[in-house]
Amino acid sequence: MASRQLTDECTVARALEIIGDRWSVLVLRDAFYGIRRFGDFVADLGIARNVLTDRLGRLVDAGVLEKRLYEEHPPRHEYRLTEKGHELLPVLLALWRWGDRWCAGDEPPVVLTHRTCGEPTHAEVVCSACREPLHRSELQVDPVPVLLPERR
Amino acid sequence: MASRQLTDECTVARALEIIGDRWSVLVLRDAFYGIRRFGDFVADLGIARNVLTDRLGRLVDAGVLEKRLYEEHPPRHEYRLTEKGHELLPVLLALWRWGDRWCAGDEPPVVLTHRTCGEPTHAEVVCSACREPLHRSELQVDPVPVLLPERR
Repeated sequence: MASRQLTDECTVARALEIIGDRWSVLVLRDAFYGIRRFGDFVADLGIARNVLTDRLGRLVDAGVLEKRLYEEHPPRHEYRLTEKGHELLPVLLALWRWGDRWCAGDEPPVVLTHRTCGEPTHAEVVCSACREPLHRSELQVDPVPVLLPERR
Repeated sequence: MASRQLTDECTVARALEIIGDRWSVLVLRDAFYGIRRFGDFVADLGIARNVLTDRLGRLVDAGVLEKRLYEEHPPRHEYRLTEKGHELLPVLLALWRWGDRWCAGDEPPVVLTHRTCGEPTHAEVVCSACREPLHRSELQVDPVPVLLPERR
């Protein structure tokens, strides 16, 4: 039971429920690119308008995007990343890095440059305390999940 | 057309097709915890056996898990992370961090300790070149995606 409870509480799964859909993540990626308007999402993604309406609504409900009126007559809205949405950038960058390494095939990769240092970059995930890369064998989880064969 | 092509090629979306499902990501999390056997996944996740069979099959097909015979009579298999699977750790850690910050509610968070430095840790995503945190405004993408209102 304790284990099942752990599952229900898992914030990884809960986070994925928000972004874990192909269209949701593409809408988010476009939001990071600076796209804000319905028609621009449609044009960039080739997404059906009803699907886009649904995904924008879900992302707004999840607090990741904010819907704002930018024109009154006729009423027009745009969609902007909230702070919660902005903080998804590391997740998208980590996904992007992994996808580039393992799912890109022969395609020329999109190049990401870190303007601050001027170098080509990709996301590296490091320890918030010592800034070294995090490896699985060096991580301890508390409370320890139950049923770990290797630790019994 | 160029934009739609970019969408089709987007490795973020492709990566998400592999892990972008609640059960898939929980199975992966358990694999990182060291769980390898069918019955242990069932016990830990409270997942229906047919759903687990499906998700394990998909993760094996995607090259993220590897199915190995560990007992011949009767034949029993276990599921281990491949190199491609191991490299998903940064993605899971970034998702975890975000979920902890934004989806955990009042729950006491699971504590992650980096044994190497002995400190409580969470994932930070930094530039692979200069090791500074990556911010959206400092990133340049080439080829530049089309239809970016802010850059036109």
